[in-house]
Amino acid sequence: MASVTGLEGVIAAYTEIGLVDGELGHLVYRGYPAQELAVSKSFEETAFLLWHGRFPQEDELTALKKRMSHYRNLPDYICRILELLPASIPVMSALQTAVAALAEAEGSAWPPSLAQAERLTAMLPTMIAYRARRIAGLPALQPDANLDHAANYLYMLNGRKPERSHAKALEAYLILGMEHGMNASTFASRVIVSTQSDMCAAVSGAIGAMKGPLHGGAPYEVIAMLESIGSKSNAEPWMRNVLDNGGRLMGFGHRIYKTKDPRAQALRAVTMELTGDDPSFDLAIYVEDTAIRLLEEYKPGRRLFTNVEFYAAAIMRAINLSPDLFTPTFTAGRTVGWTAHLLEQAAINRIFRPESIYIGTMPSMLDNDLN
Amino acid sequence: MASVTGLEGVIAAYTEIGLVDGELGHLVYRGYPAQELAVSKSFEETAFLLWHGRFPQEDELTALKKRMSHYRNLPDYICRILELLPASIPVMSALQTAVAALAEAEGSAWPPSLAQAERLTAMLPTMIAYRARRIAGLPALQPDANLDHAANYLYMLNGRKPERSHAKALEAYLILGMEHGMNASTFASRVIVSTQSDMCAAVSGAIGAMKGPLHGGAPYEVIAMLESIGSKSNAEPWMRNVLDNGGRLMGFGHRIYKTKDPRAQALRAVTMELTGDDPSFDLAIYVEDTAIRLLEEYKPGRRLFTNVEFYAAAIMRAINLSPDLFTPTFTAGRTVGWTAHLLEQAAINRIFRPESIYIGTMPSMLDNDLN
Repeated sequence: MASVTGLEGVIAAYTEIGLVDGELGHLVYRGYPAQELAVSKSFEETAFLLWHGRFPQEDELTALKKRMSHYRNLPDYICRILELLPASIPVMSALQTAVAALAEAEGSAWPPSLAQAERLTAMLPTMIAYRARRIAGLPALQPDANLDHAANYLYMLNGRKPERSHAKALEAYLILGMEHGMNASTFASRVIVSTQSDMCAAVSGAIGAMKGPLHGGAPYEVIAMLESIGSKSNAEPWMRNVLDNGGRLMGFGHRIYKTKDPRAQALRAVTMELTGDDPSFDLAIYVEDTAIRLLEEYKPGRRLFTNVEFYAAAIMRAINLSPDLFTPTFTAGRTVGWTAHLLEQAAINRIFRPESIYIGTMPSMLDNDLN
Repeated sequence: MASVTGLEGVIAAYTEIGLVDGELGHLVYRGYPAQELAVSKSFEETAFLLWHGRFPQEDELTALKKRMSHYRNLPDYICRILELLPASIPVMSALQTAVAALAEAEGSAWPPSLAQAERLTAMLPTMIAYRARRIAGLPALQPDANLDHAANYLYMLNGRKPERSHAKALEAYLILGMEHGMNASTFASRVIVSTQSDMCAAVSGAIGAMKGPLHGGAPYEVIAMLESIGSKSNAEPWMRNVLDNGGRLMGFGHRIYKTKDPRAQALRAVTMELTGDDPSFDLAIYVEDTAIRLLEEYKPGRRLFTNVEFYAAAIMRAINLSPDLFTPTFTAGRTVGWTAHLLEQAAINRIFRPESIYIGTMPSMLDNDLN
C-alpha cells in the first residue's frame, strides 16, 4: 500500500497525452515539445493533436474551426444562468455552474465524445466573456465567426478586434496551459468520469478543482512587480533594493521544474518576436534578463529559473486582462487537456476506488445480528 | 509505485469518519455501527455525529434542527436556475449545477465550514423536490419547518404529510447512505477541496461522480422484480421459475460485502417494525425470506446475502418515489458524508497530485534551447 500524502508518487494513469519531466525541463504533448507547438501551431491545431494524437489535415482543420466557431454560441438558458448568478460569485464558480448545466439527456451522455470536447472547449471563452461583461455592466457580444479561437476570446472580452501580437501571445499561453500531467483538476475529472458519468459533469468538477488557489494560482504578484518597476531604467535599482532587503523576486523558481521551465522559454520566444508591438513585452524581456543576472549575483548556485508565471504575467498585462479572469483564462486552455484525458479514461475505463484507513474509535461490541 | 487499476488497494486517506469492512460485514460511523444508528437515531443526530465525532446534547440537537430547517429555503436565484434547465437534463445534473451556483464570494469560501455542511445538507432535498415538481408541472412547495429532515423531504415531493412509517423508512435509508469509505464521489470531492477550493465546488463535483451508473446505481431491477411478483402467493413460483431458467434474483450479493450487508440488515429491521403500516414492507420481508431459502436450495454454498438495494427498492416502492429520484435521494444522504470528509480533508490538507506514466511517442529530438 502506498503513501497517503496527496498520493505523491502513486501512478494514477498511463497516458498517451502528455509528459511532464521537471528534471529535464520537458513538456511533451503527444510526442511534440509543447514549446514548439506554442510557437508554431494554432490553438485549434494543438487541440486536434491532443484529442486525436496527430495533426489535422488541412480540410480537417478547416472543418474543426468551423464546428468550434459554431459551438461558440451559448444556448439561451446558459446565458440566463450566467446572468442570474449573484455578482459576488467568482467567475470560476460561474463556469463550474454553466458547464454542469450543459449536461446532456440521460442515455446520450456516455461515452464522452469528441463533439462534446470540441463544444466545451469552444464555449468556455464565450462563458467567461459573457459573465465578465455582465459583471462589468457591459452588453454581451456575439462571437465573431471570422476570428480564430484566441482572437475571438479577446474580441468578446473587449469589443474590438485584438492586435495580432496580443492574440498570438494569448494563443501561445493557452496552448502551453492545455496539458500538464496528472494535476489535481485533471485527476478529479478522470475520477468523476470513471463512474461512467458524463463529460460535462467531469469538466465541471475539474473547474471546481482548478478554482483552488493551490492549483490555479494566478500571476498576481508578478504583475504587481512589473507594474511597480514600470520602466527599464527602474528595473535594476528596484530589484537590487528588494534583494538587498532580503525580499523575493516574483516569477522565478518552480516546484516541479528544476531547470528551465519549457513554458516560460516558449512564452519568452513568442514575446521576443512581439517586442516591437507592445512595450509591455519589451519591459518583461528586459526585467527577466536583469533578474537572472542579479539572482546569479545575489544567490550564486541557486539556479533560479524564470517560471511560466513570469511571462504569463507579461502577457496578461499586455492584453490588459482583469485579474479575476486569469484563472478562468488558464481554464479555457486546460479544457482541451481535460477533455483529451476524459476520452482516454473512458476508452480504458475502470472506476477509481482507492482505500481509506479508519483511525477513529471502534464500537465496543459490533452487533452484527440485528434482526 | 502502486497499481493503476482504479487505485485499488492504494490508501488515499486516513479517516476518523467511517469504516467499511466487507469481510466482516461492518459499517462503522465514528465508532458506532451504522445499522444501530439507522434504527435508533434521527437524520440530524447522525449528521451531527459524522460532522462532530460525537452525539449532540439536547440543546445542540434542537439548535441544529432549527438551523437546518431555516437553511432548507433556497435562494431565489437557485429556484430560477432549477426552472431554466431544460427538462431533458437529468436531476443529478440539475443538482450539480445548483450546488456549484451556491458558491460563496472569493475570500469567504476557505476553509470549508460546518455551516456550509449544514446548509448544503439541508438544501439538497429542497432542490430535488423543486426540480422534480417543476418537471412534473406541479407548483413548488415551501418546506414545512415543523417536519424533520426526512419527513419534510417527502412532504415537499408529495404535498402531504407523510405516513410515519414512510418517513421512518426513508430516514433509515438516508442514514445508511451517508457514508461508505473512499468511494469515487467522496474521493473526487477530497481531491477538489485539496486545492483549497470550496465546499460547494467539491460537493458539486461529487454529485457529478455519483451521477455515473457505476457509482450511484439505483435499485430499478429489484423494484421491477417486486412489481412483477406482486403478491406473497406469487413469490415462490415466480422465483422458482426464474431460477429454473438460469435467471438471477435481483438484490442479492455485493462486490464489497462477503457476508451480510449491514445496511440491508438495518433496513430489514426497520421494515420489520413497519410491516403493519404498509403492505409493500410485508411483501419485501416475505420475498427476502423466500429468496434466501431458494438460493440456498438452488445455489448451495454460494452464500448470497441480501444487499442494500433489495430493501432500498422496498422502501422506494413504499414511498412511491419516482425512479429518476432514486440516485438524487441517495445523494441527499451522502451529502452528510461528503461534507464530513471535506472538513476532515481541509484540516490535514495536502494537495492530491499523483503521477501518470507517459506511454505516448517521444519527440525525435527534444529541443530544450528555444531562445
